Amino acid sequence: MSTNRFAVIVAGGSGQRMGSETPKQFLMLNGKPILMHTIERFASIVPMPDIVLVLPQSQMDHWKNLCEELNFDIKLTLVAGGNTRYQSVKNGLTHIPSDNSLVAIHDGVRPFVSTQVIEQCYATATQKGSAIPVIKPVESVRLVQGNISKAFDRNSVLLVQTPQVFQSKLIKDCYNVPEQPFFTDDASVFESQGFAIHTVEGNRENIKITTPFDLLIAEMFISKK
Amino acid sequence: MSTNRFAVIVAGGSGQRMGSETPKQFLMLNGKPILMHTIERFASIVPMPDIVLVLPQSQMDHWKNLCEELNFDIKLTLVAGGNTRYQSVKNGLTHIPSDNSLVAIHDGVRPFVSTQVIEQCYATATQKGSAIPVIKPVESVRLVQGNISKAFDRNSVLLVQTPQVFQSKLIKDCYNVPEQPFFTDDASVFESQGFAIHTVEGNRENIKITTPFDLLIAEMFISKK
Repeated sequence: MSTNRFAVIVAGGSGQRMGSETPKQFLMLNGKPILMHTIERFASIVPMPDIVLVLPQSQMDHWKNLCEELNFDIKLTLVAGGNTRYQSVKNGLTHIPSDNSLVAIHDGVRPFVSTQVIEQCYATATQKGSAIPVIKPVESVRLVQGNISKAFDRNSVLLVQTPQVFQSKLIKDCYNVPEQPFFTDDASVFESQGFAIHTVEGNRENIKITTPFDLLIAEMFISKK
Repeated sequence: MSTNRFAVIVAGGSGQRMGSETPKQFLMLNGKPILMHTIERFASIVPMPDIVLVLPQSQMDHWKNLCEELNFDIKLTLVAGGNTRYQSVKNGLTHIPSDNSLVAIHDGVRPFVSTQVIEQCYATATQKGSAIPVIKPVESVRLVQGNISKAFDRNSVLLVQTPQVFQSKLIKDCYNVPEQPFFTDDASVFESQGFAIHTVEGNRENIKITTPFDLLIAEMFISKK
């Protein structure tokens, strides 16, 4: 492989939350599945990272058919996912060298990450070993405490996006620990092993498309381009 | 006045965050300023609450002209705002009776609150003395601790919307305390005086329109209706 930058794009959705038969990564945006838009974002940076796409085994044939129909020919390594996001990422990481390379782990249903944010995550991780994009909430924030909730300083709260970029040998090691319920993203896995997480500013458009509401927003973004 | 339900709708924006000359409450959505859409939501519930609209003094003539041009004739009491949201709400509350009435305090730039959420807030506040709509973040969450941040259980975090509904005599008393930097919404004012905040589930579309990004989403919502 010609670069030391990798990307693992994880698409494990079954479509349940979307209330749709079609897994969310295959919903069409402007004539193309969401997942292809996401992959194109990573393919558009220079040098292009080597891309590993993790998909449920049951969706692989459908994906290959879509690629053929739509002449989608971005070079990538297709890997079968597991039962959870954690297992899927772990499977993807087995295809990344265990060295000083950088690997970006990204949700397949975040097609609107900006190329600047991707670049900034790789750049910061080069320096610091990790980088994740975050944004601040625009709303007032409360913290649940038992049966009640209390006002909380929103400036102390960060909402986390992807790509989450790590030195590959470190994150691969971290993914050898047993899966925990509090592993909601890759940063929480990395951090659980004692490594520091560094943040960069995300872009607000980088939404995770998981509900019909999100899909409406996504259609609006695409139509404005 | 014929009802014991009131609404104070607060519109103090100057347009700075929007990067626009036009204050955000006057930006047009489907041929009508955002603020009129917001007022219509409250005017559509039965019985209709008595509405107090708080606007910067400097924008009142413009508002009256818009109402005339667009034949907007929902009955309301127009009140001049102050230098901060806190002062504006306080001014609005002087027009609400200090009794067992309920008053909903709502951001003028949240035109997409559902009538169900408004009704639910009034209903819960009738029983419990307060009600605010909240939603859970869909993203992973981190809390800032000094120079670093740590993963945090997103199920413990609530993002707060409006309308925030209170028994009028209680919230009016609360707005007699000096303004504090941590008063980011009415719930934080109410709570600072020892009163309990009750939450109801908000609707995701109920965004606060403060940036060009939000305005794009708002235009999409309107066009889908």
